Amino acid sequence: MRAVVFDQYKSTPVLKDVDRPTPGPGEVLLKVAGAGACHSDVAVYREFDRDFGPPQLRPPFVLGHENAGWIAELGPGVDGLTVGDAYLVYGPIGCGHCRACSRGQDTYCENAATMPYLAAGLGRNGGMAEYLAVPERNLVPLGEADPVAAAPLADAGLTPYHAIKKSLPALAGGGRHALVIGLGGLGQIAVQILTAITGATVIATDVNPAAMARAEASGAVTVPSGPAQAAAIRDLTGGRGVHAVFDFVGVDPTIALAMSVVAVQGRVTVVGIGNGTYSWNFYEVPYEAELTNTYWGTIEELYEVVDLYRAGKIVPKVEVFSLDDALEAYRRLEAGELTGRAVVAPHGR
Amino acid sequence: MRAVVFDQYKSTPVLKDVDRPTPGPGEVLLKVAGAGACHSDVAVYREFDRDFGPPQLRPPFVLGHENAGWIAELGPGVDGLTVGDAYLVYGPIGCGHCRACSRGQDTYCENAATMPYLAAGLGRNGGMAEYLAVPERNLVPLGEADPVAAAPLADAGLTPYHAIKKSLPALAGGGRHALVIGLGGLGQIAVQILTAITGATVIATDVNPAAMARAEASGAVTVPSGPAQAAAIRDLTGGRGVHAVFDFVGVDPTIALAMSVVAVQGRVTVVGIGNGTYSWNFYEVPYEAELTNTYWGTIEELYEVVDLYRAGKIVPKVEVFSLDDALEAYRRLEAGELTGRAVVAPHGR
Amino acid sequence: MRAVVFDQYKSTPVLKDVDRPTPGPGEVLLKVAGAGACHSDVAVYREFDRDFGPPQLRPPFVLGHENAGWIAELGPGVDGLTVGDAYLVYGPIGCGHCRACSRGQDTYCENAATMPYLAAGLGRNGGMAEYLAVPERNLVPLGEADPVAAAPLADAGLTPYHAIKKSLPALAGGGRHALVIGLGGLGQIAVQILTAITGATVIATDVNPAAMARAEASGAVTVPSGPAQAAAIRDLTGGRGVHAVFDFVGVDPTIALAMSVVAVQGRVTVVGIGNGTYSWNFYEVPYEAELTNTYWGTIEELYEVVDLYRAGKIVPKVEVFSLDDALEAYRRLEAGELTGRAVVAPHGR
Amino acid sequence: MRAVVFDQYKSTPVLKDVDRPTPGPGEVLLKVAGAGACHSDVAVYREFDRDFGPPQLRPPFVLGHENAGWIAELGPGVDGLTVGDAYLVYGPIGCGHCRACSRGQDTYCENAATMPYLAAGLGRNGGMAEYLAVPERNLVPLGEADPVAAAPLADAGLTPYHAIKKSLPALAGGGRHALVIGLGGLGQIAVQILTAITGATVIATDVNPAAMARAEASGAVTVPSGPAQAAAIRDLTGGRGVHAVFDFVGVDPTIALAMSVVAVQGRVTVVGIGNGTYSWNFYEVPYEAELTNTYWGTIEELYEVVDLYRAGKIVPKVEVFSLDDALEAYRRLEAGELTGRAVVAPHGR
Repeated sequence: MRAVVFDQYKSTPVLKDVDRPTPGPGEVLLKVAGAGACHSDVAVYREFDRDFGPPQLRPPFVLGHENAGWIAELGPGVDGLTVGDAYLVYGPIGCGHCRACSRGQDTYCENAATMPYLAAGLGRNGGMAEYLAVPERNLVPLGEADPVAAAPLADAGLTPYHAIKKSLPALAGGGRHALVIGLGGLGQIAVQILTAITGATVIATDVNPAAMARAEASGAVTVPSGPAQAAAIRDLTGGRGVHAVFDFVGVDPTIALAMSVVAVQGRVTVVGIGNGTYSWNFYEVPYEAELTNTYWGTIEELYEVVDLYRAGKIVPKVEVFSLDDALEAYRRLEAGELTGRAVVAPHGR
Repeated sequence: MRAVVFDQYKSTPVLKDVDRPTPGPGEVLLKVAGAGACHSDVAVYREFDRDFGPPQLRPPFVLGHENAGWIAELGPGVDGLTVGDAYLVYGPIGCGHCRACSRGQDTYCENAATMPYLAAGLGRNGGMAEYLAVPERNLVPLGEADPVAAAPLADAGLTPYHAIKKSLPALAGGGRHALVIGLGGLGQIAVQILTAITGATVIATDVNPAAMARAEASGAVTVPSGPAQAAAIRDLTGGRGVHAVFDFVGVDPTIALAMSVVAVQGRVTVVGIGNGTYSWNFYEVPYEAELTNTYWGTIEELYEVVDLYRAGKIVPKVEVFSLDDALEAYRRLEAGELTGRAVVAPHGR
Repeated sequence: MRAVVFDQYKSTPVLKDVDRPTPGPGEVLLKVAGAGACHSDVAVYREFDRDFGPPQLRPPFVLGHENAGWIAELGPGVDGLTVGDAYLVYGPIGCGHCRACSRGQDTYCENAATMPYLAAGLGRNGGMAEYLAVPERNLVPLGEADPVAAAPLADAGLTPYHAIKKSLPALAGGGRHALVIGLGGLGQIAVQILTAITGATVIATDVNPAAMARAEASGAVTVPSGPAQAAAIRDLTGGRGVHAVFDFVGVDPTIALAMSVVAVQGRVTVVGIGNGTYSWNFYEVPYEAELTNTYWGTIEELYEVVDLYRAGKIVPKVEVFSLDDALEAYRRLEAGELTGRAVVAPHGR
Repeated sequence: MRAVVFDQYKSTPVLKDVDRPTPGPGEVLLKVAGAGACHSDVAVYREFDRDFGPPQLRPPFVLGHENAGWIAELGPGVDGLTVGDAYLVYGPIGCGHCRACSRGQDTYCENAATMPYLAAGLGRNGGMAEYLAVPERNLVPLGEADPVAAAPLADAGLTPYHAIKKSLPALAGGGRHALVIGLGGLGQIAVQILTAITGATVIATDVNPAAMARAEASGAVTVPSGPAQAAAIRDLTGGRGVHAVFDFVGVDPTIALAMSVVAVQGRVTVVGIGNGTYSWNFYEVPYEAELTNTYWGTIEELYEVVDLYRAGKIVPKVEVFSLDDALEAYRRLEAGELTGRAVVAPHGR
């Protein structure tokens, strides 16, 4: 079959023929409906090498960690599933028998250090191919919902959902404010999720006016960048500050902005891997404000993301590419030419 | 001043002249903007006597426990408040120095048994009068919002809000379902609150089609009464059951309905004081479903109710009466002739 | 190999030769160290038949749902585990790919109705045998701790632990009281767990003075049965009531006792399957007290039970039997002649 | 009456005669049993001036924000309290009518900026005197417990208790680890509280061997300072990291230590006002670890601190001074010559 392969460090992926995978014990073979192209793929093939980056991300492997597809074949020991049904794939794959994996949070697998891969598409063959083999327990049913547009939800939906769900206590009830910094793919979905499952006033900010317009259409109040930004945000909260901030950029100035507008007892979650640093000092932060980061989510949360998708409350914006055009999708991603999440649909839409 | 006085057991209240109250230490005198007429007032003057009902509800006292008004005068020791500003009144008044009162939950005052009253309008003079004196700490600022329509929120808003807030963990995230049984004043506001602060699909039911239509306009999916009711509700949840049920009726059949549709690990809150009984059995309830009741709410929660009101997310439906027509308001309440909450506005609208 | 087989409805189990199991894909073969005999086994072989009881519990199958053992063989697709290491077995086995299974709570598997069994030893071959095959994900490592005494923790430890963990918010902080009703195997471990992980004063009650003495040795304050029981319990709480009650009997009078002593905003968990009924009425229960039941627990919680066991904070009291004496263990269990949990150790201690 | 007065910036307090206070509306006059001397008093009279420090701390006022006493007189509007009864005093005094004050958390009073004081003894006359006037709602009953030794609990007990209570979710269940950095007065009480209300293994560290020995006597495992410290702490947790860290020092190296040993999804609370700074970076902190600070606590939490004190689970170590020796107490505090909390007992012990 054809696949997009990361085959050596610091070089763009290649489209080539590889063997169709055979589902192992407890695994399922999926005919791929859609595979999302993610910025972290670019980090994988541009930045990492033998000495930098997680050792599990050693080439070669097929890219694609945001995957959806139809069951094509059941591996040994798998039953209760029907060939042809559509599923979204939970990407992380841990040891399967530690505390974290037992609760469906493979992201924090206690044996990650000795695992040969991190996720489908991250160290192990992913979904940028005609077929994909994954453990049965990583499948979340899509029912009648479109699996092509669903693919990005596996990461661009689950990551903000997880961060928001951990922040729900700070957003519970009337009179609450949330702030989304950075309105790319994840930020836009964050606005949709916040609007859907909380009563908070959602404030959003980005340097791109079109992105802000799109967030407004999803129900956000926007604030432009600039020297008056923090004051404008505080004003929108009636001076009380923001109860939950989600920073999808994660560079020095965005984390500083987040900490400057968070409320007493509020919560700041840095989601974006911008490698930013924040100089935390007891006297300069609001009392009991929590600063934390986050990483992907749990299987059960992916079920809930799908619930919102099937209810029309999350509407991912995608640009669909054929498998032949997959490398062009990555090129546009790197060039900043995409306006939605690039999804490779190997079998058409 | 003129006031609606409950002056003897088992008799309708009277409109008469009483002394204008003087605010005591730590108290504030309010010029009453609105005072809501509540079904529990009817219980007070129809059903209770020396031997039945809380001993604190001994006549005579001015009725009205859903109150809003403008500050007219500050009692000794009160400062930082401005005459003329509009406030909603938290009704319950406990000892002020026990654990429960310290957290603003006077409803569960640990010294309630020895207190001479339960609330403004319940044992102590209430707001069905030109003026009302209450402790400063019972005031929640209304800002520019209409204090007349706000009055019912003190009970008909706060009671469902409190019940819902305690149920938020069961409703957190995507794919959740809530059920509101009974669509009178509190039930309608419950639908509005659930729609505003959760992502749950709100299912609502009542025997009155007009009430169901109004709930639908607030965003609910309705299910009529009848033998297929429980099955229809379960179907709406995809067979998983309802995560949080709020029963605003509280008679045998409604509690039984609630328990028959609640999900595993769901929550049933009986709000309505219909004196219903439910025969709980280990084998007949879903695992880990919680059955509980509730009573009014906290001062801080009333702030949050006002936040929703000021944001236009709670829109109480009221019928405004002059003080001269206050007894007519109670007559219509008892006759079932009201279509909104009756609010007495002693100084006009 | 030799095994204790439930081979027909309404008849005592038999000791007979069966084939040694072969571990399937994703499974592990354990050499059984210990298998606990549980009252629910008695229900299985005494009370159930084709028409009564869960259909999954159809004979024949090997009994034993409280199991521990050493890894003897790895099935296809299993790696990262070492032959000879000791593990405790999480009993419930669900579909493995629904929401509940994804979070390690197979007890509430959404596909339970179509599953051919409920747990190892409950519909599928259990641990009352020389060897046992279970899914890899059901294993919780015991390290150097004694696997024979550990066996009962799989149910008699996990069930109270789960109930207590769900009640921790009600027991958080100083000045809290817990009540344990029924001091058999689960109740005794409940006292140990409450003492270990909460600051609550633990009140315990039973009709058996020896059981009460044992609870006292674990740190409980005991109250005897009788007409003054509820008042005595209330007195111990300073009149405030009990914040979390755990009823390990579950008959009418024990549930009634629980509801009569629970505090406002407290929690009553009925654990014991005594088929009791409680007549719940709004006016007769403390405000916001929650009434619920419970069933077994999660994989992650079993890890935490093992943490307490390895730290010496849970000390199960066991009577060890050889496999040849396993039927005698059940006889004594039914006759009430045991003073500890009966554990069958097929390979000696 | 005699009182310890902070009468000008940057100068040691003086012992002088002042008028006995008269309790205002809603206030109570206490005959002071004990008043604790706190390090923050030293900051008040050594470091602050017109330009530095909270403007509310303007001299002159009587020091002492850790107070206990017996009711001597009730102000206007106060009833239900008995002269002679002993109470511990909640120090913070906010506006009394904002959200935070309504829930008994005056520390986060929304009107603090316009309040003339922060607490009894901090901007308003405190307890280092024969008598003290405070609002009725700030009183927590001590019953028969010793009010002299209780005094420090108002701050040195409440502050760690609040920090710990907010961290309880991270410490819930078996197999948890807590770390206390800094074993002065607050740190020692933190060890006692953690031991009393959680099941966590409590690890403690300090540069002072005697302080470590005392923590060990309270149930902690201690780890000395030095280059191997972080590794030693990690080892004690089995490599998983600490679930909740409490840093009572708050300088650069202690915050860095805290962040280097905290577990994935753990919590670090900086309590000590050492003005330390931590350079937070996404890639250098464990996933979802929360970094926060804290300030004092709530009235209801002070009730719970008293519950633990009355149950013998918190045993403050105090050195009692007469009012005549109060200045000597401060001298020894500054000189580091105290081995317990200095309590001034104006009316003897």
